[in-house]
Amino acid sequence: MALNILFAGRPDRWDEYRPTLSRAFQEAGLDAVIRDDLPPAEVDYIVYAPNGPVQDFTPYTRAKAVLSLWAGVEKVVGNKTLTMPLTRMVDHGLAQGMREWVTGHVLRHHLGMDRDILNREARWEPVVPPLAEERKVTVLGLGALGRICAETLASLGFDVTGWSRAQKQIDGIRCLAGEDGLQEALTGAEIVVLLLPFTSETENVINAQTLDLMAKGAVIINPGRGPLIDDEALLSALDSGQISHATLDVFRVEPLPQDHPYWAHPRVTVTPHIAAETRARTSSEVIAENVRRNEAGEPMLFLVDRDAGY
Amino acid sequence: MALNILFAGRPDRWDEYRPTLSRAFQEAGLDAVIRDDLPPAEVDYIVYAPNGPVQDFTPYTRAKAVLSLWAGVEKVVGNKTLTMPLTRMVDHGLAQGMREWVTGHVLRHHLGMDRDILNREARWEPVVPPLAEERKVTVLGLGALGRICAETLASLGFDVTGWSRAQKQIDGIRCLAGEDGLQEALTGAEIVVLLLPFTSETENVINAQTLDLMAKGAVIINPGRGPLIDDEALLSALDSGQISHATLDVFRVEPLPQDHPYWAHPRVTVTPHIAAETRARTSSEVIAENVRRNEAGEPMLFLVDRDAGY
Repeated sequence: MALNILFAGRPDRWDEYRPTLSRAFQEAGLDAVIRDDLPPAEVDYIVYAPNGPVQDFTPYTRAKAVLSLWAGVEKVVGNKTLTMPLTRMVDHGLAQGMREWVTGHVLRHHLGMDRDILNREARWEPVVPPLAEERKVTVLGLGALGRICAETLASLGFDVTGWSRAQKQIDGIRCLAGEDGLQEALTGAEIVVLLLPFTSETENVINAQTLDLMAKGAVIINPGRGPLIDDEALLSALDSGQISHATLDVFRVEPLPQDHPYWAHPRVTVTPHIAAETRARTSSEVIAENVRRNEAGEPMLFLVDRDAGY
Repeated sequence: MALNILFAGRPDRWDEYRPTLSRAFQEAGLDAVIRDDLPPAEVDYIVYAPNGPVQDFTPYTRAKAVLSLWAGVEKVVGNKTLTMPLTRMVDHGLAQGMREWVTGHVLRHHLGMDRDILNREARWEPVVPPLAEERKVTVLGLGALGRICAETLASLGFDVTGWSRAQKQIDGIRCLAGEDGLQEALTGAEIVVLLLPFTSETENVINAQTLDLMAKGAVIINPGRGPLIDDEALLSALDSGQISHATLDVFRVEPLPQDHPYWAHPRVTVTPHIAAETRARTSSEVIAENVRRNEAGEPMLFLVDRDAGY
């Protein structure tokens, strides 16, 4: 009997996902009916995004799992009506896109590219940057995305420190953990990349005190979650010169309101939440693989630990 | 007896090189007198740059080799007074700096970063770039610098084609050679990186005909040599939209004259010859290693083939 798969992502992405999900389920050898509307009591799996139509999971009495299209699950993990297993999205396209975005912006700041991109006075003034091996980059968060970014930056020669709640071991990365480790990871850091999940413990991890630990003129790059940053503290640090630039992809409110000071600040680059865009083709393959696994009695990939919150 | 080493690089860099050369020779176990002035007939080795004080090598009757601080040797290779062996500079710092610069600017154009860096109208308009695996990058020149750049871009996932005069084999890179290979390498290319030496055969390799082969809206990145590009043809292609951007680090005349159209063109980024800056520390180590090799009867590294011209 065919599995009933409900697409409960953002409605305007259904046209994009319909063919990629169909192909992925077919290639996984699964007989599935994939629709953007199905009677709730007949749904076997829910392909989910927080900005889709489903907020109350109560009527989905038969659903075996909720498969999120988003990497971050903080908007659903506290939902009391969600009683079935929940998986996060860690797709090749999202991870690859993230590592391209992070590597690109780290290199941009490392090389001081903006000076040349914005040079409207035609000044020929060679400034040779240090080598990557002389540049201290700290990545906060060593989950799937943080890890691949840290490893890629290390492969380019950067002096990379990584921090995570629980201690990790990654070749070529100085891995720190815990509260003391956080202070150490940020002390003297020249470029700081935020890839932590958003939890009550990570909110405002970048604040006046932690900003002061960094090297004078440090750069903040945030493709993680908006609330990781105390925005007022960051703006003060930008104005004082303690932080020389912030490149921000995520915000407490999105789209970033037109009157938000980040837009007008000369030392802030706003990117419109593009660093970790889920790609339909690659994420459909992850969804189909997880359904295949669950139907075969194998453990699903990227199951969310409801207590940890991610 | 101590070796006499003449520093004939740019005079204003002597202060920087004096300690790094001294340390490198010491660490190589060589007894050397390193000076920026020595009686020519007493010089054993010449550390050379084209913008240094030595143009006529005739008086250096005892010199065993000329060790260039520059990667490109076209300004010296035709010098009839140069009868001793000549080595190019391929230092870790230069190669590493080049790969950082090239990778950074390829990612910048791939991601469309300028849109966000220059966004002064506070527009929140997500544009998700393709993944690197869907981006065709062509590297012209697979010498030491071209190879490391091509390999790094491939490691980031880009679809990389490399071209060189003689056929090469590099894992993960589609390697082409010869005139037909050049046409094939450029056809449909979206980002083209120029790392060829400057010879009579490579002059104007980027011209109206080869620009037309590239994908509509392609990007040119030139950290190689200025004369590789027919500047008039490139400006026309930029104006027609066939080429969407050019990021240029080298020019026929440097510093680039204030009235050159590249400065004012909105789709050209000028960088002031910083992509392959020789680093004093790392290049001093290469110089000392080559002297050590020659004194020990071992072949020197990076010997220039005077007939090929590089």
